[in-house]
Amino acid sequence: MVDQTEPVTIKRLAGSSSEDADDVVIREFPLTIILNNEELVTLLCSPAQMKELAVGYLFSEGLIGGKEDIKNMVLDEQRGVARIEAESDAEGERVFKRLITSGCGRGASFVSESDARAMAPVESTATIDSDAVFRLAKEFQNRSQVFRETGGVHSAALCDDGNIILFSEDIGRHNAIDKIFGSCLLEGIPTDDRIIITSGRISSEILLKVARRNIPMLISRSAPTNVAVRMGDRLGITIIGFVRGERMNIYSNDWRVRADGKRH
Amino acid sequence: MVDQTEPVTIKRLAGSSSEDADDVVIREFPLTIILNNEELVTLLCSPAQMKELAVGYLFSEGLIGGKEDIKNMVLDEQRGVARIEAESDAEGERVFKRLITSGCGRGASFVSESDARAMAPVESTATIDSDAVFRLAKEFQNRSQVFRETGGVHSAALCDDGNIILFSEDIGRHNAIDKIFGSCLLEGIPTDDRIIITSGRISSEILLKVARRNIPMLISRSAPTNVAVRMGDRLGITIIGFVRGERMNIYSNDWRVRADGKRH
Repeated sequence: MVDQTEPVTIKRLAGSSSEDADDVVIREFPLTIILNNEELVTLLCSPAQMKELAVGYLFSEGLIGGKEDIKNMVLDEQRGVARIEAESDAEGERVFKRLITSGCGRGASFVSESDARAMAPVESTATIDSDAVFRLAKEFQNRSQVFRETGGVHSAALCDDGNIILFSEDIGRHNAIDKIFGSCLLEGIPTDDRIIITSGRISSEILLKVARRNIPMLISRSAPTNVAVRMGDRLGITIIGFVRGERMNIYSNDWRVRADGKRH
Repeated sequence: MVDQTEPVTIKRLAGSSSEDADDVVIREFPLTIILNNEELVTLLCSPAQMKELAVGYLFSEGLIGGKEDIKNMVLDEQRGVARIEAESDAEGERVFKRLITSGCGRGASFVSESDARAMAPVESTATIDSDAVFRLAKEFQNRSQVFRETGGVHSAALCDDGNIILFSEDIGRHNAIDKIFGSCLLEGIPTDDRIIITSGRISSEILLKVARRNIPMLISRSAPTNVAVRMGDRLGITIIGFVRGERMNIYSNDWRVRADGKRH
């Protein structure tokens, strides 16, 4: 595996004193995805789980429907090229090519809220204890090794109501979630009734990514946008933001969170 | 001006007690840029300074060289459409169309480090006192009103060694900087020898955006990536990260920062 960090020599200032010091910074790596012999996109990413990233990206952008669509995949880790042959969705490709991208995303899967209205709501009756949310968020914080070293990455996790099942880190918040979904597809890990935790802001793009996997709960230490909240409402997704210590805000479908824990 | 936030009703949990509460979330707004009658991109942004965003975006992507290239611009704030007629750079357009985008950017201006090697280093002998860095970073933190309300935005500022000259906020860290550069172009504000402060991570894309404006110093509360540090080294840009309280790390061209302040 390619290193995810790189040593650097810095000058460290504290007040008026300064010293040369050894430090590490996060690596930024260009991964070019070639789909059916056509250059599709170059993602700047953290150089780990690059197969998972490529597959998750294709799924999130609507270019493949699942693992069964992938006929062949070759990853050249040194050159940063993932070559994929797939039964690609022609309509998905058309939409992908029409749209370039958005704020902090890349290759957005939609332009307007009306495009999202065609989506079916998430089917799940899953609920969770507020205590479990606090516990998962705490474990999530503790897991991020690269973040502690460099302060420069986002994390994402797939959980059930007691445990973190998959955990990924990347310089991009979209990439981190795509790596999770790539793992799910490649390893056949189900996502129904499960939970995504992200270190980043919950925008409409993140919300839709999660909705496509039929995931009913989305948790963040950070904030959601107004469009994400409206989509969460409509698509049956529970958005939990600002989970810090023993506090949280629930922005949509709060019926999934049971506050009457046994703890107090 | 369109509102930048939206009121929502949330359920707030603290420990095992819960209550309904009024809150505000950040708005996410799609701005479509139409360049010379062709749909170029839809940016998800905060709905303020949208003219500045459109112009700054075209500049950062290499599609225009300056204000003089803009023949006409009409902004429809309600529909979220900026229609621009410009003397567009044909080579810039070609490169733009070839590349889609990257990690947390949109429509990247380059793919590899070698593409950046063609850039001329920043020409500036500007230096700064470490005290001034601490003061600017503190003022920058204090300015972000929308962030304090919603926790969901990035900020960017253009400064000289004593004052913040321009300040912008947006849901995207790229957009916030593009708004600053759009203002500079539209209002004829010079950027030579000046400083950019950003709330976000310093990736290669952010570094190159700043280099294109011949800006010699880049400050962040957050971390740089390895590629940004290498480019900063080569392009004569001083990268200052993790500015917190009275501490900072200098990753490149540290000669611009004078630690022997008069204060202590």
